[in-house]
Amino acid sequence: MRYQLYYWPGIQGRGEYVRLALEEAGADYADVARAGSGMAAMMNMMEAHKGTPPFAPPFLKAGNLVIGQTANILLYLGSRHGLAPKAEAGKLWVHQLQLTIADLVQEIHDTHHPLGPSLYYEDQRQPARKRTEEFWNERVPKYLGYFERLLQDNGGTYLTGRRLTYADLSLFQIVEGLRYAFPKRMKGFEGKIPGLVELRDRVAARPNIKAYLESRRRIAFNEEGIFRHYKALDL
Amino acid sequence: MRYQLYYWPGIQGRGEYVRLALEEAGADYADVARAGSGMAAMMNMMEAHKGTPPFAPPFLKAGNLVIGQTANILLYLGSRHGLAPKAEAGKLWVHQLQLTIADLVQEIHDTHHPLGPSLYYEDQRQPARKRTEEFWNERVPKYLGYFERLLQDNGGTYLTGRRLTYADLSLFQIVEGLRYAFPKRMKGFEGKIPGLVELRDRVAARPNIKAYLESRRRIAFNEEGIFRHYKALDL
Repeated sequence: MRYQLYYWPGIQGRGEYVRLALEEAGADYADVARAGSGMAAMMNMMEAHKGTPPFAPPFLKAGNLVIGQTANILLYLGSRHGLAPKAEAGKLWVHQLQLTIADLVQEIHDTHHPLGPSLYYEDQRQPARKRTEEFWNERVPKYLGYFERLLQDNGGTYLTGRRLTYADLSLFQIVEGLRYAFPKRMKGFEGKIPGLVELRDRVAARPNIKAYLESRRRIAFNEEGIFRHYKALDL
Repeated sequence: MRYQLYYWPGIQGRGEYVRLALEEAGADYADVARAGSGMAAMMNMMEAHKGTPPFAPPFLKAGNLVIGQTANILLYLGSRHGLAPKAEAGKLWVHQLQLTIADLVQEIHDTHHPLGPSLYYEDQRQPARKRTEEFWNERVPKYLGYFERLLQDNGGTYLTGRRLTYADLSLFQIVEGLRYAFPKRMKGFEGKIPGLVELRDRVAARPNIKAYLESRRRIAFNEEGIFRHYKALDL
């Protein structure tokens, strides 16, 4: 079966967590909205009056299923592609970790959009500075400290032990994205999360991920996505 | 089995979506942190170095499982208590709807905390006004319009058809909470979501929910939770 991934073309965004899972799994997929009339198809699916129209991208077409919400897509893919345990307890735990990562992603987005997603960054520079300050003082230590602790408590290889899960792929993306968006702040902070930095390297070295990162399928970070580099926010 | 729910005492917050599901199901549960040394027990579980320590409340102890993240808890409870389909497609769909509701809940929280969760509302009144304005102009119509459309497309009884799911219970809470936090704005908006208003009434009339709402187990809305009534934000 060929999966069809629907996501905004031109950004990594939330679609990237799904792409990383599909790539690691070596799954066959089309990144629909990046070619031809894919964008129109994507919009039509969201406006459908039958089936399961998603609220927003990303969503994945898998046979007859249309699955929306990043963490939900990963829940579906995880047990099918060996990226999560099959037993209920492990499945729920990895999903829980992913939902916590999703909360972090939302807070990362809000550093440049504290007044809401419909306004431009340029219209909220001052609140963005304050939000970013609070994010780095309070939230980054709390979130990344939590994942660092789990990693250490589980032996330091992957988040839940010796086997990679989709949550590890997502944490790779978090470290990578924070380095892009906040190079100065991240440089000062990485000493506190040695395990996560190693995890990032371990994921990046996996053959399928390495090939993906070097391919054109990997969209470059840019200032339209979740992780944006604004000098005023990286003091 | 007696479930143990762990959540901040004194607020409905995100724990309320779990309480509504447990109450509708007539499940046996303890609201641990509201009694005795429950708060200390809750904090200890989050700091554990074994098992599956949650990042934040709410979390549910179900036998040997400790399950965190509101939507994940509902995923677990749903198929066990007839509050979601058992088949995968339906299960994923209801979970997807719940995750979209979770996104909305986050945006509701951000109306009074645009600069971040660690600061007081009193320190962010001006940005809160702007964020609230954008929320009501752009986000409420988008989210509630989406759920209203789904409801109408599925026959108008419950969100996914003739059977109640935990997502309906959560939408009840959304309507109820928006009425509490923004009575004026909500009054002006309800004409656009007649189906959701009826859904709210339908849920409120269910015997177990009715009994719960009249009991002391239902904590009153207040200005420590997600839905806060600040006059300056309800113009």
